[in-house]
Amino acid sequence: MPNHFNFELLAQDGQARAGVFHTPHGDIPTPIFAPVGTKANVKGLTPAQLHDLESQLILANTYHLYLRPGDELIAKMGGLHTFMNWEKPILTDSGGFQVFSLGEINTIDDDGVTFQSHIDGSSHRFTPERAIQIQENLGADIIMAFDECAEPYDRAYNEKAMGRTHAWAKRCQAAQTRPDQALFGIVQGGIFPDLRAQSAEFIASLDFPGNAIGGLSVGETKGEMKEMLNVVNAILPANKPRYLMGVGTPEDIISGILRGVDIFDCVHPTRLARHKAAFTPSGRMNVAKAVYADDPNPIVEGCACYTCQNFSRAYIRHLINQNESLYGTLLSIHNLHTLLQLARDLREAIIDGRVGQYVGRLGDW
Amino acid sequence: MPNHFNFELLAQDGQARAGVFHTPHGDIPTPIFAPVGTKANVKGLTPAQLHDLESQLILANTYHLYLRPGDELIAKMGGLHTFMNWEKPILTDSGGFQVFSLGEINTIDDDGVTFQSHIDGSSHRFTPERAIQIQENLGADIIMAFDECAEPYDRAYNEKAMGRTHAWAKRCQAAQTRPDQALFGIVQGGIFPDLRAQSAEFIASLDFPGNAIGGLSVGETKGEMKEMLNVVNAILPANKPRYLMGVGTPEDIISGILRGVDIFDCVHPTRLARHKAAFTPSGRMNVAKAVYADDPNPIVEGCACYTCQNFSRAYIRHLINQNESLYGTLLSIHNLHTLLQLARDLREAIIDGRVGQYVGRLGDW
Repeated sequence: MPNHFNFELLAQDGQARAGVFHTPHGDIPTPIFAPVGTKANVKGLTPAQLHDLESQLILANTYHLYLRPGDELIAKMGGLHTFMNWEKPILTDSGGFQVFSLGEINTIDDDGVTFQSHIDGSSHRFTPERAIQIQENLGADIIMAFDECAEPYDRAYNEKAMGRTHAWAKRCQAAQTRPDQALFGIVQGGIFPDLRAQSAEFIASLDFPGNAIGGLSVGETKGEMKEMLNVVNAILPANKPRYLMGVGTPEDIISGILRGVDIFDCVHPTRLARHKAAFTPSGRMNVAKAVYADDPNPIVEGCACYTCQNFSRAYIRHLINQNESLYGTLLSIHNLHTLLQLARDLREAIIDGRVGQYVGRLGDW
Repeated sequence: MPNHFNFELLAQDGQARAGVFHTPHGDIPTPIFAPVGTKANVKGLTPAQLHDLESQLILANTYHLYLRPGDELIAKMGGLHTFMNWEKPILTDSGGFQVFSLGEINTIDDDGVTFQSHIDGSSHRFTPERAIQIQENLGADIIMAFDECAEPYDRAYNEKAMGRTHAWAKRCQAAQTRPDQALFGIVQGGIFPDLRAQSAEFIASLDFPGNAIGGLSVGETKGEMKEMLNVVNAILPANKPRYLMGVGTPEDIISGILRGVDIFDCVHPTRLARHKAAFTPSGRMNVAKAVYADDPNPIVEGCACYTCQNFSRAYIRHLINQNESLYGTLLSIHNLHTLLQLARDLREAIIDGRVGQYVGRLGDW
C-alpha cells in the first residue's frame, strides 16, 4: 500500500501527545474527538453546524450503512463524503462491534460471522474481506480491521477472540485495495494485561498506519480501562495515531489523552442530548428538571458554544417540555462542543507543556 | 398610541406592492412570508438557520405560549425576542383562531370565550383585554386583535362573528398599553362580499397601523379567496400593511401579492417537510418515494437553498427511510426558502415593474 497517510508528532507532555494525522480529505489535529454519524448523519445536526463546531473527523457505522441504504448505493452516489456532504475526514468502523452487539449471531467461525439484521431478520455474512470491501465502497479516510469484541472478564473467550482478531487483521490488510484509505488494526484482550500486551505487540508488528484499542468502555471499571491503556500504549508505536474506540465522556477522554491516546469517538454526547442532559463541569445536568423552568442562565456559564451563547436553561427546558426536536439539536451542540473543546484545550496544553497544570485543576487522573 | 411604526410604500405594479414596514426590531421588507414558530421555535431550525434563510419576520402563537410555558414566564425571561433568541421582528396572533380550532369551547358571549385547554382540559377565558395583556407579556412587534373566525359559508354566523370581531377590535385598541407594539385589526366576513366590504370599512376606520384579513384559507375555494381579497384590498388603506393570515402555498402567495397583500404566514412549509414533502416548480414532491433512492439530483435543480446546494434526493430519502430528524430540518430549509425567495423575487419584480412578465411565466392568476 503506498503511504498517503502520515502522522506528525508535534509535542509530548508526559504520555500525552499532540500531533497531526494527514489524510486525503484534510489534516486531523490530535488529540481529537470524533462525533458519530451512525447512519451518515450526526443526529439532528447539519454538516454546517458540525463545521461551526470545528469538527474535523466524523465517524459513520459500517453495519448500519451496509444494511440501509447499502454500501453499493453509497458508492454509486459518489461515496460517503459526497452522500452526506462531509468533505473533511471520515472514519468507518468495521461493523464488527455492531454485528456482535445488535445483530443476532447465527455462527461465528474462524472465517467470519453469520448474523441476522436487527431491522428485518434477514441473514448476512461478514468476513474480514467483506468488511473491507464494504468500507471501500463507503470510502472513508480511515477504515477499521474486522475484529471480535469479547465480554471483558471472560479469559477463555478473550483468548479465542483475540486470536481471531489477529488473524482477521492480517486478512483485512491483504484484502485492502484502495490506497487512499488508512486501515487501522485493533488491539483486543479484555481486561487481561498479558493478553493486551500480546495483542498490542502483534497488531504493532503488522505496521498499520494507525492502531486502535477496542473492547474498552464495555463494562470494565475505570481503573481497569486505565491499566489496559497503560499496557497497550507502552507497546503501540509512537509514530502512529492511537484510537480508543467508543469512548466519549469528558473524564475518559482526559484519562485517555494522559495515557497517549490520540483519537476518540462516541455516541454519548448526542445520545445524552436526546435524553435531555448536558455535560457541565460539575457533572451531567438533567435540563428537564422543573427547577430550570425560570432559570435565565445558559447551560454552562462562560461556555463558548452556540447554545450557551444564545439560549437559557428556561428556554431549553420549555423545548424539552413541549417535545420540540430543537432541544436535541441545541443540547447536542453543547455536548459535542464540550468534548471537541476539551480535546482542543488539551492539545494546546500539550504543545505548551502545561498538561499537569491543566488537569491538576480537574482532580485525580 | 405614539406611532413607532411606519409603512413605506416603495413601488406598485398593478395591485402588487413593494414596501418596508419599520418596527423597533428592524425593517420588514414587503411582500414577505413569515415562518411560524408556534411554540417559540420554528420546528427543527435554529435561529441561526433562519438567519441563513434571510427570514426577517417570525410568527409565534399566543394560545400555545399562554398555555405553555406561560406568557408571564416569557415576560420574566425578558420577552419572546430574548427567550427564543430572535432579535428581528416577531408577530403574535391573538390566540383567537386556536381557541376556536383547538380548544373545546364552553361559552362564547359578547364579552369573550371560555374554553378548555387541548393539553389538559383546564378551563381558561380569553377576552379582547386578556388577549392584549398576554401579547403585551410576550412582547412581539406586531400583535393582533382578538377575533372570532367563523365557518366561511354560514352567513348568519358570519354576521354575528363579524359584529363581535368589530366590537372586540375596538376593545383591543382601548386595552393596548405598550407603544412599542403595532396592533393590527382583522377583517372577517366569510365568503360574503358585502360582509367583507362592511368589515374592511369598519376595520379601516379604526386606523390600526396595519390590517389583517382573517377567515380565509379555511375551506373556501381559490376563486372565493381571490374575490374576497379583491373586495377587501380595494377598501383597506394603501398606506398600511395588509396581512393575509395563515396562507402559505406558493400559488396563494402569488395570488395574494397580485391582489395587494404584503404579509403572509403559514405552518405549511415546515409541516409539509415533516410529512416528507418538498415544494417544486411542478408541485409537491414526496421525497420518500422509492424512485428517489438512487437519485443524485437535488430536490430542485438550480435552487439556491442550503439543502439543494448540498444534498441529493437519495440522501434525503435515506434520512426519511431511517427516520432521522435531519430530513425535517433539510426539507424545512428548502420549503421555507422557496416561499421566502418567492416573496423576495416578486418584491424585486414589483420594484422593477415587471410583475406581469414574472407571473406570466407561471400561468393564470
